[in-house]
Amino acid sequence: MTNAATAEETTGPTGSGADEARIREILAEEIAALRDRDPERMLAAYAPDVVQFILAPPLQIRGSDPQAVAAWMSGFAGPIVRELRDLRVEVGGDVAFAHGLTALRATPAGSPRGFELWLRTTVGLRRRDGDWRVAHVHESVPFHMQMQDDGWFRAATDLQP
Amino acid sequence: MTNAATAEETTGPTGSGADEARIREILAEEIAALRDRDPERMLAAYAPDVVQFILAPPLQIRGSDPQAVAAWMSGFAGPIVRELRDLRVEVGGDVAFAHGLTALRATPAGSPRGFELWLRTTVGLRRRDGDWRVAHVHESVPFHMQMQDDGWFRAATDLQP
Repeated sequence: MTNAATAEETTGPTGSGADEARIREILAEEIAALRDRDPERMLAAYAPDVVQFILAPPLQIRGSDPQAVAAWMSGFAGPIVRELRDLRVEVGGDVAFAHGLTALRATPAGSPRGFELWLRTTVGLRRRDGDWRVAHVHESVPFHMQMQDDGWFRAATDLQP
Repeated sequence: MTNAATAEETTGPTGSGADEARIREILAEEIAALRDRDPERMLAAYAPDVVQFILAPPLQIRGSDPQAVAAWMSGFAGPIVRELRDLRVEVGGDVAFAHGLTALRATPAGSPRGFELWLRTTVGLRRRDGDWRVAHVHESVPFHMQMQDDGWFRAATDLQP
């Protein structure tokens, strides 16, 4: 039995097609909750033992913290908009992963203008008690490989897909 | 049936335990091939349609290219060593994902001394024709959130786990 399925291969609303649809729904719901500035709703599908690799240090975070998300949100004025592109979902039994490119569009509090940042998003999921849970998140930008005079590298916050 | 398994839950050499062991072997083999500077062997388990999010731009790469890996290797003198820590593998049916922290230790060609860089590694796999294939790779460092005077952010290449 092959129950792996990519977005391209999935045709029906049953089996892994239904799982993929549910996973896409969970990811869309997280984006909607961010737009609505609702940290609890954003993290509703996260597993208690989720391991997160996010844009900011540290290297990894175990668990999820609505207060930390709220603090991050407070750094922005107005809407915080995410758009997920090139999303591919692979489902097998009770484990799945998804990846795509995300545009983050927001305006820092106190700033005269907003920004658009393209980042890479990977999500690992497992099914528990009949529904999918986010067990792993990895979001990043690459970095430019030319070392600067001060010995640092620039995060590649200027890329377009 | 629940066939999701984390490293902690897996006890035996059968079922998802055997799958997890095989996936760990594939990841270890890639590290050994890097040490031996063998790009073809490094990429032997990669699916033809692998989607890679790597340390350097662009945002994403479709497919794998031994010549690009060889060119990257030529930028270093002596051994290129990777160490994978906190590895967690989740397997379900014919799909799996794995994540951990990776130390990369190498010496740039022409440089008097080497470096150690800690990064985050996520791998998505699917089973095809009876063996596991790497369908997705995501590697990154975070970035420091303080904007520099030149308008850029520093890649966080200074982190320890």
